[in-house]
Amino acid sequence: MNQKNSCRIINFDKLPSVIGYGAVVGKKEAEGPLGHCFDIAYSDEFFGEETFEKAETHLQKTAIETAIKKAMLAKHDIDCAFSGDLLNQCIGSSFGMRELRIPFAGLYGACSTMALSLIMAGAFTNSGYCKNAIAAASSHFCSAERQYRLPLEYGGQRTPAAQWTVTGAGAAVVSEHTENTPHLKNAIIGRVRDLGITDTNNMGAAMAPAAAETIGDYLKQTDTSPADYDLILTGDLGLTGTNLLIKLLKDEYKTDISEIHKDCGTMIFNTKTQDVHCGGSGCGCSASVVCSLIFNQLKAKELNKVLFVGTGALLSPTSSLQKESIPGIAHGILITS
Amino acid sequence: MNQKNSCRIINFDKLPSVIGYGAVVGKKEAEGPLGHCFDIAYSDEFFGEETFEKAETHLQKTAIETAIKKAMLAKHDIDCAFSGDLLNQCIGSSFGMRELRIPFAGLYGACSTMALSLIMAGAFTNSGYCKNAIAAASSHFCSAERQYRLPLEYGGQRTPAAQWTVTGAGAAVVSEHTENTPHLKNAIIGRVRDLGITDTNNMGAAMAPAAAETIGDYLKQTDTSPADYDLILTGDLGLTGTNLLIKLLKDEYKTDISEIHKDCGTMIFNTKTQDVHCGGSGCGCSASVVCSLIFNQLKAKELNKVLFVGTGALLSPTSSLQKESIPGIAHGILITS
Repeated sequence: MNQKNSCRIINFDKLPSVIGYGAVVGKKEAEGPLGHCFDIAYSDEFFGEETFEKAETHLQKTAIETAIKKAMLAKHDIDCAFSGDLLNQCIGSSFGMRELRIPFAGLYGACSTMALSLIMAGAFTNSGYCKNAIAAASSHFCSAERQYRLPLEYGGQRTPAAQWTVTGAGAAVVSEHTENTPHLKNAIIGRVRDLGITDTNNMGAAMAPAAAETIGDYLKQTDTSPADYDLILTGDLGLTGTNLLIKLLKDEYKTDISEIHKDCGTMIFNTKTQDVHCGGSGCGCSASVVCSLIFNQLKAKELNKVLFVGTGALLSPTSSLQKESIPGIAHGILITS
Repeated sequence: MNQKNSCRIINFDKLPSVIGYGAVVGKKEAEGPLGHCFDIAYSDEFFGEETFEKAETHLQKTAIETAIKKAMLAKHDIDCAFSGDLLNQCIGSSFGMRELRIPFAGLYGACSTMALSLIMAGAFTNSGYCKNAIAAASSHFCSAERQYRLPLEYGGQRTPAAQWTVTGAGAAVVSEHTENTPHLKNAIIGRVRDLGITDTNNMGAAMAPAAAETIGDYLKQTDTSPADYDLILTGDLGLTGTNLLIKLLKDEYKTDISEIHKDCGTMIFNTKTQDVHCGGSGCGCSASVVCSLIFNQLKAKELNKVLFVGTGALLSPTSSLQKESIPGIAHGILITS
């Protein structure tokens, strides 16, 4: 890990605020341990739409509308929305934006998108480019399965390291500094790291090296240690990826985060009873957990300092067919009470 | 066009500079009217790689390396790269970043990506979040055709409104204000606009309404008129889209830009002799034109005030199969000498 350059810390000196947030999920997520935290839960996979893709668009759009409403703003008060999803050409985001008609900057960070969108919204509000900005991300189990893996009708057997793509979306309205809200303090944009994992059913292992590097870099650059945080929260490493992250940080950075680490993928589902194997994944996993439980706890000052590290696997079905390994990326943002 | 909100102008008060830029293209582009402007031109479609997708990765990576070299910097001097492409999950960008190991924020704006990446790099350098940032985008005719349309081997007939996806990439290094370089002055992030075009071979028509709105909004918000610019440059509207843009701006905004408008799609190819029908398209079209000819002319002060408006069609093959119309988006950035 002797990198000549480390990722630069981006400081949000004006401490922009998350003044509203919303999380919208599907049935399985509502039945999980965090079911009571979400704003809206649907009982089927279609939400009144005709296709899974349109359902995902509906999901993200509803999360954004919920966040705007809870911020007591209207659509036309939002200067820019930063969002993304896993679908080809990010149609989960862009088709929702067609209806919302908010200036829209599309992002692609795979499952790290919620962290990336929060960083962008933080940067643009902190600098006064935007008064109010949206950060959002979504995923849908059914649209993701048929795009990345197999048609659902095929009934493919899932491997032990597999994770379950969350049907969910989260959105936050970021605005100027306001008391008694979660604040965005600083951030780190990560580098792509690939240690050669080729098993597309083991995303946790593919993403863990990038997460380790981003967290390790962040702690080094900010001259802090795990004890300085209430929580280091990764996006969707799941059980396998979490174990690898802890190990990699010990090996490469001589840092043990096990005491204060949690992973949204192992929080959103009960990995023992919900048949999700290693946990949840997808852009909507960390998006829905952060934009419900985590922001709630920061607002209530039950948590005061959370380093949220979104993790993404930057593969496509084409790259895997072409025998490429799976590059990972992780972006971090420090959120304070 | 009675929109309650207009898109906000983002001001880069410190006038960040484009201190290095590079454009790398394929054979057909090298044979076009701008052939002499590009840094590197390849004579086949593979550039020594095994697949079209890996060739596109190679293309974008080479453009970025060229820009960094021309800025007289090294990879580790770059704090962040903003880039994207048209491939599913943006693998043209992310796999290149795996090798470059520069902190990477992935964007998805379809063919508007070069404008979006310049806006992001401008915003992050203007605010001091980055000292040096990369803005880049790429496309590849062969990878785009087989992903969006038909296998090349099929030899499908092209319709008259069709455009030819440019095999090309452009990259710029944006840094603090420096004399005698192109400067980024302000920007507008556009909204998704969809007037119901469903013909996936007529991208120009699908993107023109968004371009008209972004240009109209920009002129209104900045209280300027077309005569205040040396050039209003759209990304890849092609011949059909250009005609529609001129008409829409006259109808909706009572503005005539025809005297000072050019379109990268009609500049990069000779539409009369190169069998490209309505012109070039793809993220690499405006990326390679802006990161060669346009920056050259700004540097030489042959142009002093260019409003570059990247235009994107936010469809996917899935959305088209599901009978969705094609949403367009356009982002604008003012570049001065």
